Amino acid sequence: MAGIVRVDLGARAYEIRIGRGLLPEVGTWCRKAGLGASALVVTDANVARHHLAPVAESLAAASIRATAATIPPGESSKDLQHLAGLYVHAVEAGLDRASFVVALGGGVVGDLAGFLAATYLRGIRLAQVPTSLLAMVDSSVGGKTGIDLPQGKNLVGAFHQPSAVIADTDTLRTLPPREYRAGLAEVVKYGVIADADFFARLEREADAVAAGEAAVLEAVVERCCRLKAEIVAADEREGGRRAILNYGHTLAHAIEHAAGYGEWRHGEAVAAGMVFAARLSTAEAGLPEADADRLVALLRRLGLPVVPPDVPWEAVRRAMAVDKKAVGRVPRFVLAGAIGRARPGVEVPEGRLREVWDVCRQ
Amino acid sequence: MAGIVRVDLGARAYEIRIGRGLLPEVGTWCRKAGLGASALVVTDANVARHHLAPVAESLAAASIRATAATIPPGESSKDLQHLAGLYVHAVEAGLDRASFVVALGGGVVGDLAGFLAATYLRGIRLAQVPTSLLAMVDSSVGGKTGIDLPQGKNLVGAFHQPSAVIADTDTLRTLPPREYRAGLAEVVKYGVIADADFFARLEREADAVAAGEAAVLEAVVERCCRLKAEIVAADEREGGRRAILNYGHTLAHAIEHAAGYGEWRHGEAVAAGMVFAARLSTAEAGLPEADADRLVALLRRLGLPVVPPDVPWEAVRRAMAVDKKAVGRVPRFVLAGAIGRARPGVEVPEGRLREVWDVCRQ
Repeated sequence: MAGIVRVDLGARAYEIRIGRGLLPEVGTWCRKAGLGASALVVTDANVARHHLAPVAESLAAASIRATAATIPPGESSKDLQHLAGLYVHAVEAGLDRASFVVALGGGVVGDLAGFLAATYLRGIRLAQVPTSLLAMVDSSVGGKTGIDLPQGKNLVGAFHQPSAVIADTDTLRTLPPREYRAGLAEVVKYGVIADADFFARLEREADAVAAGEAAVLEAVVERCCRLKAEIVAADEREGGRRAILNYGHTLAHAIEHAAGYGEWRHGEAVAAGMVFAARLSTAEAGLPEADADRLVALLRRLGLPVVPPDVPWEAVRRAMAVDKKAVGRVPRFVLAGAIGRARPGVEVPEGRLREVWDVCRQ
Repeated sequence: MAGIVRVDLGARAYEIRIGRGLLPEVGTWCRKAGLGASALVVTDANVARHHLAPVAESLAAASIRATAATIPPGESSKDLQHLAGLYVHAVEAGLDRASFVVALGGGVVGDLAGFLAATYLRGIRLAQVPTSLLAMVDSSVGGKTGIDLPQGKNLVGAFHQPSAVIADTDTLRTLPPREYRAGLAEVVKYGVIADADFFARLEREADAVAAGEAAVLEAVVERCCRLKAEIVAADEREGGRRAILNYGHTLAHAIEHAAGYGEWRHGEAVAAGMVFAARLSTAEAGLPEADADRLVALLRRLGLPVVPPDVPWEAVRRAMAVDKKAVGRVPRFVLAGAIGRARPGVEVPEGRLREVWDVCRQ
């Protein structure tokens, strides 16, 4: 029995289905949502090995003509070169405006395939079938797509809402433990920015969550999707409130960049970035130090890093200056006044940034 | 005294300014439209030689920090490789979300710089400053942006409305005669698809139009912009009626592709494509043969080709099958039931296409 979360975006509204054993139903749901008669499934080599067969079979069973394009796993595939390869693949597969893209995989596949769908023939439909925790609770919902430039992550992108999201939580069992843990950072984020009760529940059930117990997991994913759906419906193009979803991300992006993409997983960088943002929040936004400590404790129990890597501050500072949220090369931060309450777009004096960086690095 | 055409698109509404001597006012208008404090001017080497200085000076005078990126002239610059170069340029120039792109040039610059603006940081603002007739009457208005793939033109793109369009008709005096004439094809198109009176006026004033007389030209550009603005406002994303703007373009794109980009100018291909569509319209949509002949006569007086190039039909047919309007590899056509009245999305039997191709090639 799948949970259903509706994302209210008027003409672009869609449903997120969350549950166990949904992959063999992907074709059915794509047909019911009217996505099209032919599809290009974009996936990576790891995900293909575990999950491509049931999805391909379900599309065929729903009379949807589908071909698959497989990219190498990892963030380094999220670039212009692999995008160019997918464009060629789409043309050669005969994809037209009545076709759609299926993004089967984690955040990299979802962002890249989403940008493909946003820009091929000026936009065709998209189904997100996330198979990582990060993708389920974050990147598959909300319509952000993007690719990386050598100068930084997600510097190129488009808003393109999916027409359907299908999250089979059974796929999480095939994740490497490190990747699963990394996804938990985004889960914790929802508690910090928007839901103190959820944060408290994560503290109570941290062991079950860390172990990936199926029943807990389904509920956690659904709660995160519901929170994200509400935030996105209120501010689709990130004119204001939606930016709170970037809590911890200003430093996270800089860590990934300065340490080299692939060294730190995105979620790990977000964990360290959230601690940094919490310490900034204590200094600049009135977050009680005890709450910053609760965050550190929870992240530790979930097996996540809370100390940023040993990279020069200068490199981190430079990378933050080209963050998409920067204004005139001055980075902006999401700060939390309390657990469950965040506000975006805060400028923090450079001296303070350095000071908190040093505290976090200890 | 500039003419002003307003494009009614709700929150994305904008104004098109048309007149002589507007380039030195670009900075002022960008500032009045609230485009931003810094800009990247994208242009090509030919346009830069004639027109970059007054634009750069006007931006500086309006306290807008601007840098310029110059691409080689010609359709071959409208590709992923040059786009990648512009992304790097944008990052290095420090463009953030409060910055904007100025597209100073013809259709290639407008499409490429427009796609840059649509996708850099998931979209920043855009000013279109068209300097070719084609760009003034067509590509700078309406929000279509795009780049070419080796397999076809404009196969990648996005809808991204400009925040301002500034068309200085004096720039048309610097156009090579062949390029000016090519632009007239799109002018004629508006008569065929939406305005029989305008078509008749073009017939009456064909010599002045062909000679590029300043007063006539200003009025012609304004009328075309007004027609396009109405069509776009009624159907921004080309769900229906807007597709009539592609009259003549199914064959035109195929000609450009089959003959090799650059051999035929876009407008020349559109002229031959409009004749093809008119002959199809006589056979399939009741267009009087005399009206098809009027179109041929007008195009000839304007110095435009009316016979498609000597390329194999098989190559043309294949190229039309991957046109963006194709459905399941079957091309669709805009046909005219009368001059001033067109409808999009018509499927034509393959035998008829071949037959009309042979007629046009005679």
